[in-house]
Amino acid sequence: MIKRLGGTTPTRSNVAVHNGIATAVATAPVKSPSLYDQTKQALAVLDDNLAKAGLDKSRILSVTVYITNMDQKPEMNRAWDEWVDRNNAPVRACIGAALEGNDLVELVVIAAG
Amino acid sequence: MIKRLGGTTPTRSNVAVHNGIATAVATAPVKSPSLYDQTKQALAVLDDNLAKAGLDKSRILSVTVYITNMDQKPEMNRAWDEWVDRNNAPVRACIGAALEGNDLVELVVIAAG
Amino acid sequence: MIKRLGGTTPTRSNVAVHNGIATAVATAPVKSPSLYDQTKQALAVLDDNLAKAGLDKSRILSVTVYITNMDQKPEMNRAWDEWVDRNNAPVRACIGAALEGNDLVELVVIAAG
Repeated sequence: MIKRLGGTTPTRSNVAVHNGIATAVATAPVKSPSLYDQTKQALAVLDDNLAKAGLDKSRILSVTVYITNMDQKPEMNRAWDEWVDRNNAPVRACIGAALEGNDLVELVVIAAG
Repeated sequence: MIKRLGGTTPTRSNVAVHNGIATAVATAPVKSPSLYDQTKQALAVLDDNLAKAGLDKSRILSVTVYITNMDQKPEMNRAWDEWVDRNNAPVRACIGAALEGNDLVELVVIAAG
Repeated sequence: MIKRLGGTTPTRSNVAVHNGIATAVATAPVKSPSLYDQTKQALAVLDDNLAKAGLDKSRILSVTVYITNMDQKPEMNRAWDEWVDRNNAPVRACIGAALEGNDLVELVVIAAG
């Protein structure tokens, strides 16, 4: 049995959990022009969605962080470092890529379910 | 024991399954100029490969969809929405990136094995 | 209990292992101008980190390889083909994207823990 938490459309979920493994994605609800702010928002969305699945950030195994402007990576790092559980630091990759509309950051997450 | 299904070369697999978790990748066999068509093909390849591993799309936890032209994302969405199991919608991220040759889309998948 | 192996900073890990699943990332320690060389280095780092977690490359399910210049993909392939365990070939995707500083390649890995 796979547990799924609803996404923005009926064709996608925000979180899926099965037998000890969970996957999740998150973006910022408000498309502000600051990567720091969007990352903070996306991490808060992630926290909320993990909580709805009975999980929390200490359970995260890895995060792939896609950002649209690699020159601004320090802003993402700042939001990350403020947010992260230092006793349970995830594996992380930061990749520069195109995202939809005014998204500046998207998080793709694997967690222990 | 990890079950692996052969890929296009001896140095890669299309699907790997182990102890309740499966990973897969898929691209379109025919490199047509339409993102809608390539996405449809890639999703069909994914269905085939999951079937060979004894799985199906209802078991998918997450899909990262890489496309070469974010402006054409609605075409990918159209193929996705036609294909998806709405009772078992995967977590999904769509990322704009460079792909090889005339590939317009590549799917990277995590499923419950 | 999630086992984590230290990363380059206190806010990230290089490997995380939980209940049969492991995630890892790797880049080249020396930012040489050759994609072949950086890939070789990154794969060696991956081997080391898997070994510290009690794993090895035969346990890898999938690798997403991010490279900054898709035109040089054959160089990455050469390093991959020399390195890969042909009896246990991972699922692999190769994605062109921006990376930090002089990184030419980054590996994002899922393995059976």
